[in-house]
Amino acid sequence: MAHPSTSAMLMRTLPHRTLASDLAAAAGSPATIAGWLATRRDLGAVTFLVVRDRSGSAQIVVEDEPLRETLAGLQVESVLAIRGDVVAEPRARGGVEIHAREIEVLSAVTEPLPFEINRPLLKPALDVWLDRAPLALRHASKQAALAIAARLVASYRAALDRRGFVEIFTPKIVGSATEGGANVFPVEYFGRTAYLAQSPQLYKQIMVGVHERVYEVAPVFRAEPHATTRHLNEYVSLDLEMGFIHDHRDVMALVTDLLREMLDGLGETAGIELETLGVTLPACGDIPVVTFREAQEIILRESGEDAREEPDLAPRHERWLGEWARREHGSEFIFVEGYPTAKRPFYTMPDPMDPAVTCSFDLLFRGLELITGGQREHRYDRLVAAMAARGIDPAPFAGYLDAFRFGMPPEGGCAIGLERFVAQLVGASNVREVTAFPRDINRLAP
Amino acid sequence: MAHPSTSAMLMRTLPHRTLASDLAAAAGSPATIAGWLATRRDLGAVTFLVVRDRSGSAQIVVEDEPLRETLAGLQVESVLAIRGDVVAEPRARGGVEIHAREIEVLSAVTEPLPFEINRPLLKPALDVWLDRAPLALRHASKQAALAIAARLVASYRAALDRRGFVEIFTPKIVGSATEGGANVFPVEYFGRTAYLAQSPQLYKQIMVGVHERVYEVAPVFRAEPHATTRHLNEYVSLDLEMGFIHDHRDVMALVTDLLREMLDGLGETAGIELETLGVTLPACGDIPVVTFREAQEIILRESGEDAREEPDLAPRHERWLGEWARREHGSEFIFVEGYPTAKRPFYTMPDPMDPAVTCSFDLLFRGLELITGGQREHRYDRLVAAMAARGIDPAPFAGYLDAFRFGMPPEGGCAIGLERFVAQLVGASNVREVTAFPRDINRLAP
Repeated sequence: MAHPSTSAMLMRTLPHRTLASDLAAAAGSPATIAGWLATRRDLGAVTFLVVRDRSGSAQIVVEDEPLRETLAGLQVESVLAIRGDVVAEPRARGGVEIHAREIEVLSAVTEPLPFEINRPLLKPALDVWLDRAPLALRHASKQAALAIAARLVASYRAALDRRGFVEIFTPKIVGSATEGGANVFPVEYFGRTAYLAQSPQLYKQIMVGVHERVYEVAPVFRAEPHATTRHLNEYVSLDLEMGFIHDHRDVMALVTDLLREMLDGLGETAGIELETLGVTLPACGDIPVVTFREAQEIILRESGEDAREEPDLAPRHERWLGEWARREHGSEFIFVEGYPTAKRPFYTMPDPMDPAVTCSFDLLFRGLELITGGQREHRYDRLVAAMAARGIDPAPFAGYLDAFRFGMPPEGGCAIGLERFVAQLVGASNVREVTAFPRDINRLAP
Repeated sequence: MAHPSTSAMLMRTLPHRTLASDLAAAAGSPATIAGWLATRRDLGAVTFLVVRDRSGSAQIVVEDEPLRETLAGLQVESVLAIRGDVVAEPRARGGVEIHAREIEVLSAVTEPLPFEINRPLLKPALDVWLDRAPLALRHASKQAALAIAARLVASYRAALDRRGFVEIFTPKIVGSATEGGANVFPVEYFGRTAYLAQSPQLYKQIMVGVHERVYEVAPVFRAEPHATTRHLNEYVSLDLEMGFIHDHRDVMALVTDLLREMLDGLGETAGIELETLGVTLPACGDIPVVTFREAQEIILRESGEDAREEPDLAPRHERWLGEWARREHGSEFIFVEGYPTAKRPFYTMPDPMDPAVTCSFDLLFRGLELITGGQREHRYDRLVAAMAARGIDPAPFAGYLDAFRFGMPPEGGCAIGLERFVAQLVGASNVREVTAFPRDINRLAP
């Protein structure tokens, strides 16, 4: 055959380098470190470098004059591969440093950074660094917050996988603005108008008919024209839905176990990141439960504000409830159940003992709504009636209603906002602080 | 305190029921099974039911006359909870059956199904059952295909987690139609026009600067107005990107390991589903590699068709290459590398030995493109020049370019289309066969 490489098989392995966190084990041997130039200090006869990689950072000593010349003009964030001898040095981080023998410049940065990202504090204001997020996210605090989000999601999935849940992938382009209507983004779809899904609510309920227990981790889109510290117009929603429940309290019990396992998982997998951010994980033992009406009484006692005629809780009410839960129950979490039927969507199960309230709940974490959930109306006739009572046209819901027409067990579920969870956990005052590329009414880039 | 339930803690556990797959272990004891009525046979003095739950199905014998009356008028897919004695019965599936003592109707189906979903074959044509997906997806073959997708994704994440990759969540609403331009869906975004992301390509590259190794599992949106058996306008993309590579062959090596681990993982976690669909997993040993030019020579020899002047491979070319790889190398997979620079996007790294071709690859699985990947241009000046050579305005890319201006290692990555992978794996002739709620030019619902 005249095609020598056609039968060539891949024999390559990933490039060999030693991560900063593994350097100490290489003391006394040569090693290659590769990463971003974090700091440099040029003294008379020697240059000290700190190079950052995904595992941490390493100190490099460069004495050889031609080698020092290869560094001429290089700004921080240049990417270097450095080969040298790993030498014990008690004063260096990790107890070792590298005495450089070869330096390869993988990417030369020749202009100064717009702001410093290798110091303990990221100094620019939020809007300034968000504009330069590709650079700012390299700061240890941002990198850590994003890694924490990833580990939380991994623990979420693991906890649900253990319970026989199946991951689902539901469409984000939908044919009609089904859930409530107003706050949806229209999409131009081959000459028609479609919409971005506000949540996977209807699809995850349908999928209870297929897998009984399902979850999804995916973006949701809310066209709410506000600009608060706790809302994004696109965020990651951790959704779950399960069949064969008694009522919403089964979902609350699952949520309690889930939170505990997520926080435990985070402790096991994100120790370094939590330390970087100085975060102590909250205990999640038994979570106090109050009804919506009891919550209003607590608010009156706590604040003197009489909100007993209100159909919902305002953010300040949630803060007061959070303070009450911490003081009275030593809990960072509190469930509020039994929200008024009037303020909950058509698919919410009314309380069989009192149809003015619902089998629904919110979970507040440090005084902020983190999770919304409840039991759903699974009885076809009641579901149709609930839509009619709200003046909702059933036609666009034909597929959804099919799932109930053809047999659906009592079921319920909930949704957790990922960015909000991370923000509350790490003590960020704005959800944008822990979102890589936030989307809001003023921000579409980068 | 006058608020008795405010301090009530959640003491509930999830409802106790025995899954069909666990019934055999309960032989000789009472148990409750809950699920969908799959079949019923009414004989003179006895009714036989088969009830389906997420684990399988169970046979129930109902002899008691009042109990038989509770079943009057119930169609299949009604949801039942049945308590009774588990009795050994060699002729029943699983070796046991339940002699019913109590039956609770959790959801009564009172009309016949539009088509049968509890038989081995789902008979309606694709478009017919897709219109009734909430029902049709309950069919064992559909349920299995969707579960296989979930397990594949889980294995993908696990394989990357083991290698230090970090999961990322990047925005799906983007400010400009950056990648290629034409085939994007416009979104009405607070009075401006935004777009749905065609891929996380630019964001995942940016994030190499933050975590070095990243992956994302998320929907992507392609406004391509075609209607083929292998395209969807919204699909799930398994993306990854990694820094500190030598060239695209490092990505190919990772892909090879990844495929092997994904298929192994699937074998371990989806044995029942694979059996339901009669799927034998392909071996994934060493994968043959041919260059684009060699591929064209093979096509000429295989088919007599001279495509050597073409800048890309047509679907029939890929099929022929797949047949060649199977015959000559016993492999269901084949890599094609070195695609012409003219047909690859601006961020593709040109081959340093021959800039007319690129350090890119496609992986074909059973003659269909499954993965596209390659090394990216990480040198800021070259990247800017590549954009200029293609007449691309750099302004909307300011954030992306920042990531390279401020230091980026040699890097590369790839993307896998989830639905296409599942379709090829289970032998579905149309990707819609294994997609819960496909989106195409003709289909926006359910």
